[in-house]
Amino acid sequence: MLTVRIAPWRRLALLALLPHLFLSAAAVVARQCLWPGQASDDAGCLSWRVMVEANNARGWRTVPPQCVGYVSGYMTRGQYQRDVAGVAEQARAYADGVAADADGLDAWVFDIDDTCLSNLLYYEAKQFGAYDPLAFRAWASREACPGIHPVLGLFTTLLDKGFKVFLLSGRDEETLGSCTAANLEAQGFSGYERLIMRTPEYRGQSSSIFKSAVRKQLVDEGYRIRGNVGDQWSDLQGDCAGDRVFKIPNPMYFVP
Amino acid sequence: MLTVRIAPWRRLALLALLPHLFLSAAAVVARQCLWPGQASDDAGCLSWRVMVEANNARGWRTVPPQCVGYVSGYMTRGQYQRDVAGVAEQARAYADGVAADADGLDAWVFDIDDTCLSNLLYYEAKQFGAYDPLAFRAWASREACPGIHPVLGLFTTLLDKGFKVFLLSGRDEETLGSCTAANLEAQGFSGYERLIMRTPEYRGQSSSIFKSAVRKQLVDEGYRIRGNVGDQWSDLQGDCAGDRVFKIPNPMYFVP
Repeated sequence: MLTVRIAPWRRLALLALLPHLFLSAAAVVARQCLWPGQASDDAGCLSWRVMVEANNARGWRTVPPQCVGYVSGYMTRGQYQRDVAGVAEQARAYADGVAADADGLDAWVFDIDDTCLSNLLYYEAKQFGAYDPLAFRAWASREACPGIHPVLGLFTTLLDKGFKVFLLSGRDEETLGSCTAANLEAQGFSGYERLIMRTPEYRGQSSSIFKSAVRKQLVDEGYRIRGNVGDQWSDLQGDCAGDRVFKIPNPMYFVP
Repeated sequence: MLTVRIAPWRRLALLALLPHLFLSAAAVVARQCLWPGQASDDAGCLSWRVMVEANNARGWRTVPPQCVGYVSGYMTRGQYQRDVAGVAEQARAYADGVAADADGLDAWVFDIDDTCLSNLLYYEAKQFGAYDPLAFRAWASREACPGIHPVLGLFTTLLDKGFKVFLLSGRDEETLGSCTAANLEAQGFSGYERLIMRTPEYRGQSSSIFKSAVRKQLVDEGYRIRGNVGDQWSDLQGDCAGDRVFKIPNPMYFVP
């Protein structure tokens, strides 16, 4: 009689416990879930990411080890996509206020890697570790870099508005020229004025020096650089940077 | 007999429900709590904030209405403090690699409002709305702006290292000169080389034009501007911006 009376209590206790077990498991999975005032590694990694975007943190070699998971989450769970779309929208709003002249000399400059084409899959596979030129060349040669959609939308809008678009990349022209052109074409980046890549004379020079020299050359040819879009500050500073620059987010690596 | 047997079930049901009620209430309070993949206004406001810091979003008049709560939370719940401390740390690390020469001409420039002294209380009271010159003058005249601690730490370190520090503010010298100096002194900002504020000839001019002119004058006097710290990009661009610039976060307002 006693055992019969206790059994329903046990069943009830189990029933009462189950939702708590479920909620606890969900809380462990939900890494973004913080109560007010609670901090986490993510808060420090958010500080670091914003410092990168504001050009306060410079010359870093790899993502800080404690932020690899954060950067991976940032890049793949929606915030990166939102951020890129926001920057493209700012650029579009600015472009709406600039009329391209009939002389065909109003220009925009776009970087390629992680501006037009994404290397996220490559860097994820490398755990956002040190740059590896041979492995990167193998990756780029596959012509498999996905296009970055909001930037493609901006690119197309600018062409429609009559701007001349120059694609300017630190990739080596000799080894990666044709596969880069094919990858761009396959991802919808066509109709640009010129694809300019690193020539042997600039091998070993910083991206900043190479890109400044190319932009100066464009200005000497008579082009007016109205806008300049890149994921690295070295794309956006130096000589003839452009009337306005747009920084596409990139917490994966730093190029001087 | 029947009623006596049901009562414990009712008590158990209540006991089982109570934790769920508590968790539900806590979830409503915890606005930062998101399950993976879930978005919120905060995600869009984070995009906007990072665009401000990266100088992609320009010329905005007030915080977007849907982001007022986000900005208030950002400024008061720890992330802003973390971000400012991070930037000050980057500046200190850079300064460690620059020796101040014995000629006493190695200089740093600091902005004042929301770089050295905080106006958070003023902007909070204004719901981060449009700039109001009269109300701001009344606020600044109270000499009650709290010092921003990580920036004070950097300021002190630089003085100890032998740099000359110039405080450069768009505040009107005639009306706010003495109260600004008193507020700085009270908050520990003493020992600087010169406090330079907006003179009548620069009234109505952009902060960027005024500050560029002052920095050029300093360089003409022989100073080498090694670093420049401000919360607005207009502090950090233009003539003689400095060898390296540091952007203190500020999602509260935009100064051209």
